[in-house]
Amino acid sequence: MKHKAVERIAALRAQMAERGIDLYVIPTSDFHASEYVGEYFKAREYITGFTGSAGTAVITQTTADLWTDGRYFIQAGRQLEGSGITLRRMGEEGVPKIKDFIRETIKTGGCIGFDGRVISAKDGEEYETIAKEKQGTLYTDEDIVGTIWQNRPGMSKEPFFILEEQYSGRSTAWKLADVREKIKEAGAQMHILSSLYDIAWLLNVRGSDIFHVPVVLSYLIITQETCIWFVQEELLTEEQSAYLAEHKITVRPYDSIYDYAAGITAETVLLDEKTVNYRIFRNLPESVKKRKKENPSERLKAVKNPTEIANTITAHIKDGVAFTKFMYWLKTHIGTEPITELSAAEYLKERREEQEHFLDLSFETICAYGENAAMMHYAATPEQSAALKPEGFLLVDSGGHYLEGTTDITRTIALGPITDEMRRNFTAVLRSNLNLAAAKFLHGCRGANLDILAREPLWSLGLDYRCGTGHGVGHILNVHEGPNAFRWKQSRLEDTAVLEEGMITTDEPGVYIEGAYGIRIENELLCRGAERNEYGQFLCFETITYAPIDLDAVDPKDMTNREKTLLNDYHKNVYETLSPYMTDAQNRWLKEYTRAI
Amino acid sequence: MKHKAVERIAALRAQMAERGIDLYVIPTSDFHASEYVGEYFKAREYITGFTGSAGTAVITQTTADLWTDGRYFIQAGRQLEGSGITLRRMGEEGVPKIKDFIRETIKTGGCIGFDGRVISAKDGEEYETIAKEKQGTLYTDEDIVGTIWQNRPGMSKEPFFILEEQYSGRSTAWKLADVREKIKEAGAQMHILSSLYDIAWLLNVRGSDIFHVPVVLSYLIITQETCIWFVQEELLTEEQSAYLAEHKITVRPYDSIYDYAAGITAETVLLDEKTVNYRIFRNLPESVKKRKKENPSERLKAVKNPTEIANTITAHIKDGVAFTKFMYWLKTHIGTEPITELSAAEYLKERREEQEHFLDLSFETICAYGENAAMMHYAATPEQSAALKPEGFLLVDSGGHYLEGTTDITRTIALGPITDEMRRNFTAVLRSNLNLAAAKFLHGCRGANLDILAREPLWSLGLDYRCGTGHGVGHILNVHEGPNAFRWKQSRLEDTAVLEEGMITTDEPGVYIEGAYGIRIENELLCRGAERNEYGQFLCFETITYAPIDLDAVDPKDMTNREKTLLNDYHKNVYETLSPYMTDAQNRWLKEYTRAI
Repeated sequence: MKHKAVERIAALRAQMAERGIDLYVIPTSDFHASEYVGEYFKAREYITGFTGSAGTAVITQTTADLWTDGRYFIQAGRQLEGSGITLRRMGEEGVPKIKDFIRETIKTGGCIGFDGRVISAKDGEEYETIAKEKQGTLYTDEDIVGTIWQNRPGMSKEPFFILEEQYSGRSTAWKLADVREKIKEAGAQMHILSSLYDIAWLLNVRGSDIFHVPVVLSYLIITQETCIWFVQEELLTEEQSAYLAEHKITVRPYDSIYDYAAGITAETVLLDEKTVNYRIFRNLPESVKKRKKENPSERLKAVKNPTEIANTITAHIKDGVAFTKFMYWLKTHIGTEPITELSAAEYLKERREEQEHFLDLSFETICAYGENAAMMHYAATPEQSAALKPEGFLLVDSGGHYLEGTTDITRTIALGPITDEMRRNFTAVLRSNLNLAAAKFLHGCRGANLDILAREPLWSLGLDYRCGTGHGVGHILNVHEGPNAFRWKQSRLEDTAVLEEGMITTDEPGVYIEGAYGIRIENELLCRGAERNEYGQFLCFETITYAPIDLDAVDPKDMTNREKTLLNDYHKNVYETLSPYMTDAQNRWLKEYTRAI
Repeated sequence: MKHKAVERIAALRAQMAERGIDLYVIPTSDFHASEYVGEYFKAREYITGFTGSAGTAVITQTTADLWTDGRYFIQAGRQLEGSGITLRRMGEEGVPKIKDFIRETIKTGGCIGFDGRVISAKDGEEYETIAKEKQGTLYTDEDIVGTIWQNRPGMSKEPFFILEEQYSGRSTAWKLADVREKIKEAGAQMHILSSLYDIAWLLNVRGSDIFHVPVVLSYLIITQETCIWFVQEELLTEEQSAYLAEHKITVRPYDSIYDYAAGITAETVLLDEKTVNYRIFRNLPESVKKRKKENPSERLKAVKNPTEIANTITAHIKDGVAFTKFMYWLKTHIGTEPITELSAAEYLKERREEQEHFLDLSFETICAYGENAAMMHYAATPEQSAALKPEGFLLVDSGGHYLEGTTDITRTIALGPITDEMRRNFTAVLRSNLNLAAAKFLHGCRGANLDILAREPLWSLGLDYRCGTGHGVGHILNVHEGPNAFRWKQSRLEDTAVLEEGMITTDEPGVYIEGAYGIRIENELLCRGAERNEYGQFLCFETITYAPIDLDAVDPKDMTNREKTLLNDYHKNVYETLSPYMTDAQNRWLKEYTRAI
């Protein structure tokens, strides 16, 4: 069978030729630089057939290339077979960066095309530079893929709800006041906000316009006096309209942002050029000064308020109950009935759904058995779902959105006998996780300062994981949230934020042995204040994920006494927290699996 | 008695008034941005009376201010008493930065003065900006302090020697070729080098124009074909002239660099604007493009070559023998004869001088008893030299230059009973030192990634030291050398270099309790290659400092088994390395003080 990409690329090339476009860029993005995108926005997937969550296609009359990152090399290689598309493995030696490739490829006087709404202002300006260098032009006012896309799904237009203050902890009025203060500090009179996470946080609304990401497709314009929400307004209920009116928020049609931008008269506009799209940016009048800066809401929302913190802990307890029931079932049923990756994930989903105020999974469950777990972002499908055997490791990375908050937890479970090497590596990953969680540090530290606490137990064995150690977690928003993170590989420390009291970051070291197995243990860490003295403000972490770490895979001989104490204290806390919600049989099991070692 | 600063500042103000200078800046620097400076260059000390190694004075007709850093707050406070000078404690809350102060202080149309030879091009350009903002002027062509300085010491003009290749490991021809390659890579045709350390390294010469820093006052101009050394040429012996001729190095008078700079015709000149002085920079013709970049030699010399490494280890063994003999003497004589901070330092110096190929101390010995050690850079003087008692801690930070290399070692020695808190803190500092030294890490890490390995044992106790954990060490050059360092408090990771095989960095955590005691344990760490596998190149450290860590102050109960093993392995190595050079009595003592715990 011919790969679908072949004729789609041919159709695209015909459209390009008609318009005199020499090279067309198709990124993975919506109009808001979202990490995951709705079905309407999956143009790159439509053209290439590659379904991963990240990748950029570049098409010319003679070439077709797709760039993606290490999480997707195996999957993309498989899905592009027969498509004629060259896979470009980002980060590998000799692989050109996208912009370098374009600079090399585009002829003098050539035309670079892309839909200006799915490219950030920052990227757009870089393409402008390339076009200028080549005395060429840009073509950005049309979605060319849209012209050939048969049966394109409609743009999502899901209802949304207002997150009451008992869950959000801060009224929209409060948050708007904070943001307006920051706009003033930045010397701007207006702020264009297009990040869906930030808008949902600021307006205390939650929707479902992206699968597992409860946001509302919209833009926001904020000045000291006004606030305009560009949204698919036919969605609004009477109650919601009243709520917006109460906050003096005006509503305009979603698409009208472009015309609005063209008419802005403010002297200086604050915007994040990495999330505001190129078309909005280019529509701004020349006379408007652009103050490029991260969205003020980014740091504000990363520091969780007391209500969010208390609620998030509640969410984690529910999630821990669900996960622990799943783990109990798995441990006591494996080998006695057929279980697959998908059926296990389904069982886990049902346990979450039983919890009060459950809204959605926070991302598609990764339930990966044996060698499948060596792919960090593996997802089983009905066509491909391994049967679980009573041996080796099952890695389960999952989470939920509850009305109280969002969770992200990974456990690696021994389904039966494991090798000595697997036990050694599991114990090393556990030590990594525990040592980072136990850090006490002075205010001013960033993730890059702390990351080695997690790496060192693995590095000392000559092992590593090819990703960060952890990421910030949104509050009923994207499960991946900046600016806090644990990463060592970066050239600018400012790429991640100073760790602040109230930030929540995952702690998820791992070991991935290709063709064999994967291990990851992930807890969420809440940053808490410790003592303040003449040296400054000390901070520490509270682990807010509650579920047993499989003692069947731990070798206590590899652990220091301190590490054993950390594990035992954690497990004691898990038992005390979860046991009120368990059956007697589950509690007998849990007691055993949270015993002191 | 009237403080000398009073009339010197009055004299300076008279000169300033005569020239219409409103504000005069006197930094601590020579013409080469050296950290320590020769007597001729101590203008800031002459004017203010403050003798510390770092500080900047700013004088107007009505104000006199001195900025210095945390190492010198106590000393400067004492030395400025009665001077009328305001001490500005850098880094403390509410203390303005020097340039902000100047911007606030200088009136519109005012004139800022400084000797353009003791201010870097970078700083000079910032003063230009301030002058421009204020529609004012700069006055930089004269050394105003020089006009009032009675009996000023002459500029140093010490003989130098050629460091043979058996010590340097690389010929000047080799090093010049490397630097010329980098000049080409930077797109420049010429390189102006004024860092004395880099010039000495590049030309394989060592002198003594700065106390304890074996450099030769000079500048260097390098092109692909030529190399011109601006040096006090009357110094040259026939042999040295022949050596220079052999390397096609032309000699010109030291002071003629300024005229030379004015006549440069190269299209692009590579220079480090942080070390090339402002007058040279301003003398360059407008038409010359300035490629501002760190000196290529900085990274080249930081990665020690195999000969330097082998020789440096030899130097450390000698130094360890000297220090251990000193420690033995101290431990066995304290309480039986009068010993002071100065006499102890003198005894230690004599032990170093006994070693073959000893050249000089690598810096003034810090021998600080009791509360004096809480001042990180305390130096005893004949007027102030505490008597040592058989109790508490003596902190000794010292080192030597040998023909083979340079050392820097700190030990804290219990002279008798210590409190439980002192023992706890000593053990914590020891753990800090051991944990950093035991790191294994992937290539790509910088000091900021590793620093927490040393901090964490102290941070977990709510303690900290207000400085970096370690610095690079020059090879018979400045004992403080960049770009490698261990520091967490910085906003740009690039401020320190990626750690490379062959770099040598100190590991010197400490605890400083004001008014009570100070603890520091300092070893030097040589970066070595470990395995290379699919994750990348792993690196580790070899500790190349050899001297016992005082077991009388260690509490084994506070240490993990791994930490005890690290200490025991280290001590075993110390004994095996040093015992061939010790007397039987010393060895009996050393055996006891390097025993396994």
